[in-house]
Amino acid sequence: MTTDIASVKAIVFDTFGTVVDWRGSIIADLTQWGNDNGIDADWAQLVDAWRGRYEPQKDRVRRGEIAWTNIDDLHYEALCTLLPEFGLSNLSDAQRLHVNRVWHRLNAWPDAVAGLTRLKKRYVVGPLSNGNIALLVNMAKHAGLPWDSIFSCEHFQRYKPHPDTYLGVCRQMYLEPHEVIMCAAHNHDLDAARSVGLRAAFVPRPTEYGPGQTTDLEPCADWDVVASDLQDLATKMGV
Amino acid sequence: MTTDIASVKAIVFDTFGTVVDWRGSIIADLTQWGNDNGIDADWAQLVDAWRGRYEPQKDRVRRGEIAWTNIDDLHYEALCTLLPEFGLSNLSDAQRLHVNRVWHRLNAWPDAVAGLTRLKKRYVVGPLSNGNIALLVNMAKHAGLPWDSIFSCEHFQRYKPHPDTYLGVCRQMYLEPHEVIMCAAHNHDLDAARSVGLRAAFVPRPTEYGPGQTTDLEPCADWDVVASDLQDLATKMGV
Repeated sequence: MTTDIASVKAIVFDTFGTVVDWRGSIIADLTQWGNDNGIDADWAQLVDAWRGRYEPQKDRVRRGEIAWTNIDDLHYEALCTLLPEFGLSNLSDAQRLHVNRVWHRLNAWPDAVAGLTRLKKRYVVGPLSNGNIALLVNMAKHAGLPWDSIFSCEHFQRYKPHPDTYLGVCRQMYLEPHEVIMCAAHNHDLDAARSVGLRAAFVPRPTEYGPGQTTDLEPCADWDVVASDLQDLATKMGV
Repeated sequence: MTTDIASVKAIVFDTFGTVVDWRGSIIADLTQWGNDNGIDADWAQLVDAWRGRYEPQKDRVRRGEIAWTNIDDLHYEALCTLLPEFGLSNLSDAQRLHVNRVWHRLNAWPDAVAGLTRLKKRYVVGPLSNGNIALLVNMAKHAGLPWDSIFSCEHFQRYKPHPDTYLGVCRQMYLEPHEVIMCAAHNHDLDAARSVGLRAAFVPRPTEYGPGQTTDLEPCADWDVVASDLQDLATKMGV
């Protein structure tokens, strides 16, 4: 394994789920906000329903049914559609915007900041996320993520798993695909990265989707690295 | 002044000259490299001649005479043209590439890292530079610049002072122009930023071009902030 990854110069990270705990963060944030503002709802069910719209919404862009639309706008549209089911039709525009921006306020998994800080000593580290630029910048400041740069699919106007996203990072950084390793808690993301020549590191996040998660509990292929978390990834990457 | 800048949420920095000492860094780097490799040249004259091609080269892109070309490629072309005058025609391709990449290895002015670290506590900080993405990422790692994100003209495929560069940052970050302040050691950059609504902060770098510098020794307009260096800027921005 050491030989395999000796050429790696940059590590790019799926972010939602791999680096930050979106579900736990959103439930905690909106529960507090609801309590502070006298707004009651089943926030856990809301976030699960909201996330349920995530891939179908991106698919509309991927299939060309709608023009490029960033994640904040896709989230907002889905949120407004869902609010009536949760008894929240009366939220003002400002409140809807605040709720939508919860994705900018996600917290890191407990190992993430320390792991990235170690990895940053030797490697270029950055998100390679479907999240848009402002979202990723604001999230990094909120969660203390020490990125070297932000690689957002918004820069490429393509959503993962389009090859332009993985190869776009390589082109911008003048790196060969085998010099970049994609780290994700999602096997399908790694499969797409590997298919265009990148290395792949799997980190399981078995509670990303809550206690009943059934997917991505194990690596589904012989990924270049399998680590228990980002601290373990740092150890396995030699830093 | 405090009222004027109270709405500022992000500070973007011209980088060559404002944050890093390109001339001093390049002379020191290439002198050392020349000594290590038995290559003798007047490196100070080379860097001055090289920088002399910088605006004319970008002008070719600005006028549409050539397609979008990033700074590394413009630097490389200019370097190869200059080498014969400096007795360096025999440099190999690998040596030319190493010399060209000296722009990725620039050092910060003495106040820059500490000043940016303070500013980062309250503001989004990033370069807004004509330098390309890889150059800015590698430079940040080399010099320890704690950017929140990299805003490169390569993202916008336009060189400053085109409005798309300044307004591109605002659009990506969902900020109004008055919420962004451009910091530069160059009055013309601030003039362009202000003309599209951004705030402007001047920091003099009176030896950027060496001991005989004659321009940008003083602010040429009533910029929103005039600071002696980035530590002083942090103080004047309230952090």
